[in-house]
Amino acid sequence: MADITPLLADRWSPHAFDKTHVISEDQVQLLLEAARWAPSAMNRQPWSFVVGVRDDDVFARLRPAIEGFSDWALDASAIILGAYQNAGSEPDYALYDLGQSMAHLTVQAEALGLHVRQFATFDRPMAGRAFNIAAPWEPIIMAAVGLPAPGQKPEGRARKPLSELTAWQ
Amino acid sequence: MADITPLLADRWSPHAFDKTHVISEDQVQLLLEAARWAPSAMNRQPWSFVVGVRDDDVFARLRPAIEGFSDWALDASAIILGAYQNAGSEPDYALYDLGQSMAHLTVQAEALGLHVRQFATFDRPMAGRAFNIAAPWEPIIMAAVGLPAPGQKPEGRARKPLSELTAWQ
Repeated sequence: MADITPLLADRWSPHAFDKTHVISEDQVQLLLEAARWAPSAMNRQPWSFVVGVRDDDVFARLRPAIEGFSDWALDASAIILGAYQNAGSEPDYALYDLGQSMAHLTVQAEALGLHVRQFATFDRPMAGRAFNIAAPWEPIIMAAVGLPAPGQKPEGRARKPLSELTAWQ
Repeated sequence: MADITPLLADRWSPHAFDKTHVISEDQVQLLLEAARWAPSAMNRQPWSFVVGVRDDDVFARLRPAIEGFSDWALDASAIILGAYQNAGSEPDYALYDLGQSMAHLTVQAEALGLHVRQFATFDRPMAGRAFNIAAPWEPIIMAAVGLPAPGQKPEGRARKPLSELTAWQ
């Protein structure tokens, strides 16, 4: 890839996490702070998060919605559940904005030397019930955060060619 | 805000752009490259872009969809139209992923000393027709890129408190 900023160029999503790594409270706060300052339509900030740190009570409440779907994520140092405020519009820019917010969180993780893998393979209704997340809010994404398991490498990163991304002009 | 990485902390969206600033072709390529390497569900990369640079032919084709809605954007050095591949699912992670991709583009703009203001206040069907963008692709966002007009300052940046963003736990 061309010389884009290292925080974007070096980011990759591990498939397996180091289950011995411990994330600090300061790091968690910085991840959320980064998400907080993302841009959004009309500055509505239609995002909200639940953060479980491995072995804490919140992580334990997140766990049942993950087990059987995405067991690999249970090794991560933290799991962040992302919810958006469904605006009922078409398209729903709140969903787009949650994506922006989580992207900012991911960039901040890279700045902290941490890695993130987002996943939607969890039981969303179960996760919502565990934290009384009610409409118009919907939990839709999780982000596993930590260090890659030993031996994990950013192999096979590939994207469509730039020419395909600008094919209409 | 806490000490998040400067590329995120210093980012802000001007309401007016410097109509004399000229963006380089290299800068445009880096913006697209950053968008290209964003993460997406199953690595589907459900995003595509049209980039008009002020005074070029593509900008002229974008212009009618903007005039009357968002005239301020016509002063920007470039306008990038973002489209996503509607997956027809609920929720549609493709929309979320376009948000991530545009967020990466915005972070790269900050790395280049450029500013971005995203806007959805344009005639989406008209923009789609101008470039033959057909279903399942939908144009849904534009990003004005350039330098702030003289006198523009990042005043009044505000976000919900962090406690509100994690209220469920």
